[in-house]
Amino acid sequence: MEETLVVVKRGNHIESEHTGSIAVVDWQGNLLYRVGDVSRMTFTRSALKPIQTIPLVQSGAADRFLMNDKEIAICCGSHNGEEQHTQVVNSMLFRIGLQEEHLQCGAHPPYSQERYLELVQKQIKPSPIHNNCSGKHTGMLALAMHLESDIDSYHRMEHPVQQKVLESLLELAELPEEQVITGIDGCGVPNFGIPLSKLAYVFARLAHPEEIQPPSLKQAIKRITQAMVQYPEMVSGANEFCTEAMQITKGRVLAKGGAEGVYCLGLMEKGIGIAIKVTDGNWRSAYPAAVEVLKQMGELAPLEEVALQAFHTPVIQNRKGEHVGKVEPVFQLKTEGNRGN
Amino acid sequence: MEETLVVVKRGNHIESEHTGSIAVVDWQGNLLYRVGDVSRMTFTRSALKPIQTIPLVQSGAADRFLMNDKEIAICCGSHNGEEQHTQVVNSMLFRIGLQEEHLQCGAHPPYSQERYLELVQKQIKPSPIHNNCSGKHTGMLALAMHLESDIDSYHRMEHPVQQKVLESLLELAELPEEQVITGIDGCGVPNFGIPLSKLAYVFARLAHPEEIQPPSLKQAIKRITQAMVQYPEMVSGANEFCTEAMQITKGRVLAKGGAEGVYCLGLMEKGIGIAIKVTDGNWRSAYPAAVEVLKQMGELAPLEEVALQAFHTPVIQNRKGEHVGKVEPVFQLKTEGNRGN
Repeated sequence: MEETLVVVKRGNHIESEHTGSIAVVDWQGNLLYRVGDVSRMTFTRSALKPIQTIPLVQSGAADRFLMNDKEIAICCGSHNGEEQHTQVVNSMLFRIGLQEEHLQCGAHPPYSQERYLELVQKQIKPSPIHNNCSGKHTGMLALAMHLESDIDSYHRMEHPVQQKVLESLLELAELPEEQVITGIDGCGVPNFGIPLSKLAYVFARLAHPEEIQPPSLKQAIKRITQAMVQYPEMVSGANEFCTEAMQITKGRVLAKGGAEGVYCLGLMEKGIGIAIKVTDGNWRSAYPAAVEVLKQMGELAPLEEVALQAFHTPVIQNRKGEHVGKVEPVFQLKTEGNRGN
Repeated sequence: MEETLVVVKRGNHIESEHTGSIAVVDWQGNLLYRVGDVSRMTFTRSALKPIQTIPLVQSGAADRFLMNDKEIAICCGSHNGEEQHTQVVNSMLFRIGLQEEHLQCGAHPPYSQERYLELVQKQIKPSPIHNNCSGKHTGMLALAMHLESDIDSYHRMEHPVQQKVLESLLELAELPEEQVITGIDGCGVPNFGIPLSKLAYVFARLAHPEEIQPPSLKQAIKRITQAMVQYPEMVSGANEFCTEAMQITKGRVLAKGGAEGVYCLGLMEKGIGIAIKVTDGNWRSAYPAAVEVLKQMGELAPLEEVALQAFHTPVIQNRKGEHVGKVEPVFQLKTEGNRGN
């Protein structure tokens, strides 16, 4: 059963509650802490992006197209559609010899409200380049080119690009294909669901790939995670949680969220992975829960905790900016020996 | 305990779930059906608006300022900020001799995306008139003028306007003040929380006020509910659920939602009230749950059910408009004798 992760208070009264599950697993596969139901099948959504980038790097496609670490980072990102993001994606597209029209992700307004309003004022319609997944799709196109496979159907499950993504996930999660569920993500490519504890395990292995074979896979993982923590602004954007979490912890923490209340963290020095799923899919409680896990594990220095406070216990304001409530994590991480709690 | 009201599927797999509680009560106070915990203390949020409008009408303030039914309806509304809405609010403000600057609701972009983009293109900053509560606040200002009380502090709990709102709620809910919780709403005025079954009872009495004393209260309620079902476009706006639900059922159903997953319905011919609270506060499951309750109670004709389908079982699309999932109600209304289910 899921447990209450976070409460939302108006004045002193609880108005709403978010339940969910949390798994904390080390690189050897030990379940260190749990909340709720860690065996819950969980669509990985955009938390899959670092894994979706593995075949691009491991195959040599990234090197062939002279992709730098900033570009690798945006392939793993759910970016804000800021100028800095669309520039990097455009530059990659140019280098692989393709255009925006080849992106199969569809269009949505940039997550950056500032950029969106700028487009509206200039009467520019949002296009696939502004889609938060345009970096990932460009990476997939580069891989399709490298594999000399069809570039118009790279988003289909049967395409070699998606087959290689699935292989990478199965390898890292140590799961047979029959134990993976499949759906179509918001950006049109296949997304996979695995048990929550396995998702935490995948992030533990991303954080500590030293024992992973073959060396090409280990090296690809190292390059990807280093790119993400070195260019966290490519993973999300200004004032966003993924970006701030990696910046504030100076890259000790790998951070990547996904739609429907999925949040994953990797402790780079310790080889520990954390996976959170909010049952109702609301992002509102995912960030508070993520910071709370780090705090309970003693992974945040006091100043880091202060710097993350606005994500940890957000204040609810009314339309005049007065404080009328707050969001508060209420769960307690349990060790396996403490299951009955 | 709350129960699962609605599931969100990606492909054939459940990705997220929304729990909640539902109470169905008649005008005599009988609990006809329940789901989850109907004694749950529930902030009424914008479902309080018809009640917040009672003192305006009952005191004679609405008549004094020559308010028509369209204007009464927008006082009960969470409007979209469309041209048709801001025109009505501006006209009311003019007639009571006040300006937009007297509204204490704060500003937010119009809910209508079309109107919002129009403002951005014209470089007009959203102002309090666009706030979805600007009708209600104008009504409160009219009442403050009528009572010859201070017009700058009408939003404070100790002000006669808010005291009269509280009195109306206590009267309709048949609750002592000690059993009501208080918080500040998003628009800056006090909001009250009562048990969910009492909220359903309040809507039953709105739908069937015949036995309510004094006559001035009964008449005020009749005028308010008639205004809402006659001008449903003032209660919300184009393509919005409250508006469509009242239009499609030709006013047999009174419909008003509130923030944080609150939804209330009144069956006008039967004097039955329905109150729904989604535990996590997400609107995504409130409309499907509301339609499902009406359906299970046999209150929808086949063509009405078809017309409400997009609210009942919404399709989830990816950014290219392909269907990748759906939202589905899964609860079953239980009678009291069926409590063990």
